[in-house]
Amino acid sequence: MKVSVIGAGAWGTTLGLVAHRAGHDVTLWMRDEAALMSVNTHHQHPGLPGLFLPHDIEATQDLPRAVQADLLILSVSAAATRDMAKLLRPHLSPETQIMCVAKGIEVETGALMTQILEEELPGQPTSVLSGPNFATEIAHNLPAAAVLACSMEQWDFLQGVLSTPRFRPYHSLDIIGVQLGGAMKNVVAIACGLLKSQDLGENAMAALITRSLAEIRRIGISMGAQPQTFSGLSGVGDLMLTCLGTKSRNLQFGEGIGKNPQLKEELVHHLKTVEGLLTTRSMMTLAEKYHVELPICETVYKVLYENTHIMTAIETLLMRPLKSETDKIH
Amino acid sequence: MKVSVIGAGAWGTTLGLVAHRAGHDVTLWMRDEAALMSVNTHHQHPGLPGLFLPHDIEATQDLPRAVQADLLILSVSAAATRDMAKLLRPHLSPETQIMCVAKGIEVETGALMTQILEEELPGQPTSVLSGPNFATEIAHNLPAAAVLACSMEQWDFLQGVLSTPRFRPYHSLDIIGVQLGGAMKNVVAIACGLLKSQDLGENAMAALITRSLAEIRRIGISMGAQPQTFSGLSGVGDLMLTCLGTKSRNLQFGEGIGKNPQLKEELVHHLKTVEGLLTTRSMMTLAEKYHVELPICETVYKVLYENTHIMTAIETLLMRPLKSETDKIH
Repeated sequence: MKVSVIGAGAWGTTLGLVAHRAGHDVTLWMRDEAALMSVNTHHQHPGLPGLFLPHDIEATQDLPRAVQADLLILSVSAAATRDMAKLLRPHLSPETQIMCVAKGIEVETGALMTQILEEELPGQPTSVLSGPNFATEIAHNLPAAAVLACSMEQWDFLQGVLSTPRFRPYHSLDIIGVQLGGAMKNVVAIACGLLKSQDLGENAMAALITRSLAEIRRIGISMGAQPQTFSGLSGVGDLMLTCLGTKSRNLQFGEGIGKNPQLKEELVHHLKTVEGLLTTRSMMTLAEKYHVELPICETVYKVLYENTHIMTAIETLLMRPLKSETDKIH
Repeated sequence: MKVSVIGAGAWGTTLGLVAHRAGHDVTLWMRDEAALMSVNTHHQHPGLPGLFLPHDIEATQDLPRAVQADLLILSVSAAATRDMAKLLRPHLSPETQIMCVAKGIEVETGALMTQILEEELPGQPTSVLSGPNFATEIAHNLPAAAVLACSMEQWDFLQGVLSTPRFRPYHSLDIIGVQLGGAMKNVVAIACGLLKSQDLGENAMAALITRSLAEIRRIGISMGAQPQTFSGLSGVGDLMLTCLGTKSRNLQFGEGIGKNPQLKEELVHHLKTVEGLLTTRSMMTLAEKYHVELPICETVYKVLYENTHIMTAIETLLMRPLKSETDKIH
């Protein structure tokens, strides 16, 4: 099968590598000239240091050519997805599958990635891959599992594309829930970073993450997601990895901001992709659209965009008056 | 209110300290002569290094005197709970509340702590406290939340006893689910330790923990627990803290065994309390009693008690054939 990665950063390239390991022909489409040269000449990707790519994985800037594939792994940022979809449109065959793997929500509209594609590429078969997946570990072939959300018919076609003994996608029909969990956890990771910056300990972090899971479930149900999705790999699995693992930029960003709010711009520049920064704004769009209270997202928003003092924010995160565990869950 | 801690190790003493901060009279009952001397003379507990206890928290070996209280915080190990209940019986007033805070399940019978008390002290009002709570953090007054499972009537009485601005119990009616989550997570922590010992990365750990949550839910439902309990503080909250935090003895034990299976006895001795070692056996009792498959617990059992090779065990943990995310959840 022909697989092209559209927007081959570290994560997209890693998924291309998985598809190659599963026996498919892989092309990487990227804009970055230096990265392209590095892949085609040295078989290395700047986002995956120390890793050598197979020589038959080729990088290109030729979009019309890259689009001639059975599956496109769409891995540009959430903010760039609509424009990318427009660029793809003239070149797409109607059978080409598009798999969204970026974790984010459009700020202005609150649209999930597949909702953007429905608008820009109506009728095109789309799917979503999400889960507790640090790219570098998968690139180095350490074991991981993920969720692939799509119809049963697509699953029959897609399950083999990214399945290896070390990378195992599981099927879900819940396109909305899988995307929401993956996006919103980046906001929670920033909240956890804020907490971490004040050395408040691991108990507080676990309490915050647990409460955030209830918040994700609440907005998810309003959006038509299946509640049990949030107890799975793309929900609590991804949430705990991002918030308690050691490799999340969103967590580092929250921690940095918490220590010195003046450093916001510098941190954004240094960490490159901090999806949670935009997703925090997207969550405010969704809270309004679905009339759901999202106290944790709102607190992060106030710190990032309204200069709320960090300790005031943390008091809000930890001290919200609640009596029953069920108040919190539903 | 008079509060006595029965079995004042690090966790029991910490809860005594919380009750003292909430304004109550606290007595610590303990067997260990050296610890008792240390508390009464130096106001320090050997399990909580660097922390000074208030001078009016007194330790005693006089059980009949300690039992004269409004609330007993029962903090002996799961294995010692039945014998302790028998010792308490002759001295108890019928109104004395007993709060179980040990996380375990009786090996031979599969009985939860409150089920033991129902048998040994019928009619005595009992409750359960559980959650993502490392003792030392709470002792040092870092913020934390927990779940207190009891009837509504008991909640009115008990909610003030352990509530401070920094330690917040939430109410649950699910006595079974709250205990099961707290006990079983120690087995999962051992499984995570085994995984960690082989340097298989954080993605694999997140996948394992997520799958174990489905396993806890499955046996919980069979035992009459409320499924949503496992999405709360005493479920996923405690699970993620134990498996991904930095202070779990069960995790350290699993990691140690994974690196060198010969060291089992030495590790048990060195780490002192490894509740998961016994709870693994308890889970086999429950699997049989309720006819539920518990593949993760069973794998840990085989490593600990049947000398299954560590890599065989890990293959079993990671490679179980599953297709849909929902297979895994339910």
